[in-house]
Amino acid sequence: MDFYDKDLVSIRDLTKDQIEYILDLSKKMVPYARGEKVKRALDGKILGNLFFEPSTRTKLSFESAAYRLGCDVIDVSEMSMTSIAKGETLADTIRMVDAYCDVIVLRHPFEGAARLAADVSENPVINAGDGAGSHPTQMLLDLFTMREAKDSLDGLNVTMVGDLKYGRTVHTLAQALTNFGVKLTLVAPESLQMPQDIVDRLKRNGCVPRKTSVLEDVIGDADVLYVTRIQRERFPDPAEYQKVAGTYRIDNAMLRNAKDDMIVMHPLPRVNEIATEVDSTPHARYFQQAFNGVPVRMAILCAILGGDI
Amino acid sequence: MDFYDKDLVSIRDLTKDQIEYILDLSKKMVPYARGEKVKRALDGKILGNLFFEPSTRTKLSFESAAYRLGCDVIDVSEMSMTSIAKGETLADTIRMVDAYCDVIVLRHPFEGAARLAADVSENPVINAGDGAGSHPTQMLLDLFTMREAKDSLDGLNVTMVGDLKYGRTVHTLAQALTNFGVKLTLVAPESLQMPQDIVDRLKRNGCVPRKTSVLEDVIGDADVLYVTRIQRERFPDPAEYQKVAGTYRIDNAMLRNAKDDMIVMHPLPRVNEIATEVDSTPHARYFQQAFNGVPVRMAILCAILGGDI
Amino acid sequence: MDFYDKDLVSIRDLTKDQIEYILDLSKKMVPYARGEKVKRALDGKILGNLFFEPSTRTKLSFESAAYRLGCDVIDVSEMSMTSIAKGETLADTIRMVDAYCDVIVLRHPFEGAARLAADVSENPVINAGDGAGSHPTQMLLDLFTMREAKDSLDGLNVTMVGDLKYGRTVHTLAQALTNFGVKLTLVAPESLQMPQDIVDRLKRNGCVPRKTSVLEDVIGDADVLYVTRIQRERFPDPAEYQKVAGTYRIDNAMLRNAKDDMIVMHPLPRVNEIATEVDSTPHARYFQQAFNGVPVRMAILCAILGGDI
Repeated sequence: MDFYDKDLVSIRDLTKDQIEYILDLSKKMVPYARGEKVKRALDGKILGNLFFEPSTRTKLSFESAAYRLGCDVIDVSEMSMTSIAKGETLADTIRMVDAYCDVIVLRHPFEGAARLAADVSENPVINAGDGAGSHPTQMLLDLFTMREAKDSLDGLNVTMVGDLKYGRTVHTLAQALTNFGVKLTLVAPESLQMPQDIVDRLKRNGCVPRKTSVLEDVIGDADVLYVTRIQRERFPDPAEYQKVAGTYRIDNAMLRNAKDDMIVMHPLPRVNEIATEVDSTPHARYFQQAFNGVPVRMAILCAILGGDI
Repeated sequence: MDFYDKDLVSIRDLTKDQIEYILDLSKKMVPYARGEKVKRALDGKILGNLFFEPSTRTKLSFESAAYRLGCDVIDVSEMSMTSIAKGETLADTIRMVDAYCDVIVLRHPFEGAARLAADVSENPVINAGDGAGSHPTQMLLDLFTMREAKDSLDGLNVTMVGDLKYGRTVHTLAQALTNFGVKLTLVAPESLQMPQDIVDRLKRNGCVPRKTSVLEDVIGDADVLYVTRIQRERFPDPAEYQKVAGTYRIDNAMLRNAKDDMIVMHPLPRVNEIATEVDSTPHARYFQQAFNGVPVRMAILCAILGGDI
Repeated sequence: MDFYDKDLVSIRDLTKDQIEYILDLSKKMVPYARGEKVKRALDGKILGNLFFEPSTRTKLSFESAAYRLGCDVIDVSEMSMTSIAKGETLADTIRMVDAYCDVIVLRHPFEGAARLAADVSENPVINAGDGAGSHPTQMLLDLFTMREAKDSLDGLNVTMVGDLKYGRTVHTLAQALTNFGVKLTLVAPESLQMPQDIVDRLKRNGCVPRKTSVLEDVIGDADVLYVTRIQRERFPDPAEYQKVAGTYRIDNAMLRNAKDDMIVMHPLPRVNEIATEVDSTPHARYFQQAFNGVPVRMAILCAILGGDI
């Protein structure tokens, strides 16, 4: 499974075998991610975090992943800002960062930026989200969280709820899940349902999602409930927002009809989408999911930089 | 002396024996803090600096202490800001940080925040100051500085001068000193004297402080002169501020009547409280005190994370 | 060649032998700077980056250089800002930083700041640019880039073009080059030519530069073309700026008459001074030059901190 010195730009770069290779490697990373075992597998390497827009959790979990492997980190985000101010092109900025590190983690507001960076850079580039484009490490940590909880992804019933229209995370994740023959249920008000072009692509990959706006009707079938935030600014009418947000709020009452081993995921931060009373139930898996960003990113760094665990 | 995997939230968590254990361990750390000896006792560990308000010296000396032991550092302060902006609770932020590191160093403007964080976090939490609450590592480095200069804390005459009303540092320090049978002298204008509830607590612990507003009357008795900044904004009348600030300014003339081995301490930064001419006298101990933040915080990290020096 | 525990404040501190020692050591550092070889020669050491004004590339390349040698880095720039705000003197700030690290890298807007810092600090201070003063590490990486390309500096024809009046980089570099018997050509509009006092100093050191405003007349003689940015704000009349900037723009047409092995250097970031079509020619050496900041700064750190490669 050759990731060595390769870019990770889009989930479409990844075959099912490659995804499973990363998930297997992630599992091996867990004790190192917890600090229970120590091995400086990437000693002397340097990761360059180049974030053209804030995404603190992603940045920090890459930092943590690097440190757990003995890899140093430089934060070149500040340079990105001063360079833009001075009129430097993205290509020139990438070439500069390239001189100071061994792998570039790029976050950029514009789709396609990661591909451009990968073309220009001599070192491998990891896409940490580029606008409406891909965010492959987020997708991999979500898959890893499901697989850890359920042993296998094959045939799971994954129910996504919330803003399915604007949320890049659920678009990427839904497409990746088609590799594993999952049953997909999409719960959203009509105005926030999954875009038709994404649904068409899912169908082409053999997955015909069930759509509904009523969570109570389908929650009993879910193995995984993937909750996303509904942003107030999507609604011209505040009262309409309140109604929708309230409808999809996950609390213990809502979970009464769920399977005992159904897990609740959320990319965090949450605001009111999940009541804190859910935290202490066996359903809650969102903090675990946040932690999983570390072993998954360790696996990716190790595979790309050639570390040996 | 079991600090392993424990929180350090309040000085009230610490017995006299525990304080002396940390001070002894701090002494062992000095050559490592200076970079004269190297041992990666915390190799593979990660410290998370979570500062909800700026306190650059404290943050930097924790960073330096961690690096001297081979421990990496992530600065999650930025996350704290974006999380608050997105409406995340402190508890959720702590749980997130918890996923990325092995120990959390928390600075927060509100008293009680460190206790809450310690309750929520699986990893140990070190309080780096929470509002009017405790700041135990500052207290320990102050004690260490006195003990290094005087061999023992027992029976020392400690004279505190300046703003004793609003300065959390002197409140915490005075209470800690009651463990060691010190003679305490409190020098301040009436309006900035030590609050009565703190004085009452000192008395309950067997220490009856002497109060005065005239430094010249008492400086000759001091073994330690602990100087704090008087903030201009405490005075409605600027002329009144000038008068008070001038009265307590430490210069060579003021030190004429001091014992030869009396030491002058200050938490820094100073503005005009201590004349620079004092720097080259044997009394000056404030830069040493700043340095002592490193070995003391090394000792605390090592004790809590189980490093072996 | 004793650099151990010494400050590096000005290029005048450096003899020709010392410059060559650093350039030789830099060459040994290249495989470590690329991450191809790993040796923690400065394990346990801490570098303090104290930048009173932004200079992200310099800061980052010091960071990268430190990490490649196993040296940790604390960024104390934030402290510099809060300290100033609180009225702390530069001397006090330096003494504080001194307590947290083993070497201070200082960037400051005022000439002479590095000398002051070096006088106050117990640890060595490296000047990373102080106003109109010196920037010795930039000069050394420029020399290293020329020597790597040309095997020797002796007798090279170095042609500097652009803003030679305000650009500190070219002033320092020109002076350093007089050690090596170079032929210097200065290409600039009359209003942006090299200041007379610098030219006088060059002459005293045996180098009589040729001056011209027409690049085409002299480009055929150059072994090295050192391009600098002309800043729009130097010109009261925008049309005048456009004309000058256009005159000195380096593109493939301009390079037609250049020697085959002539190299083009630029301290970056570039805006329009060099056309991107030049990037893929064998002349382009500016990205290499940026990378060279790492091995050169590694050599300096290693020499000053006593690391063994």
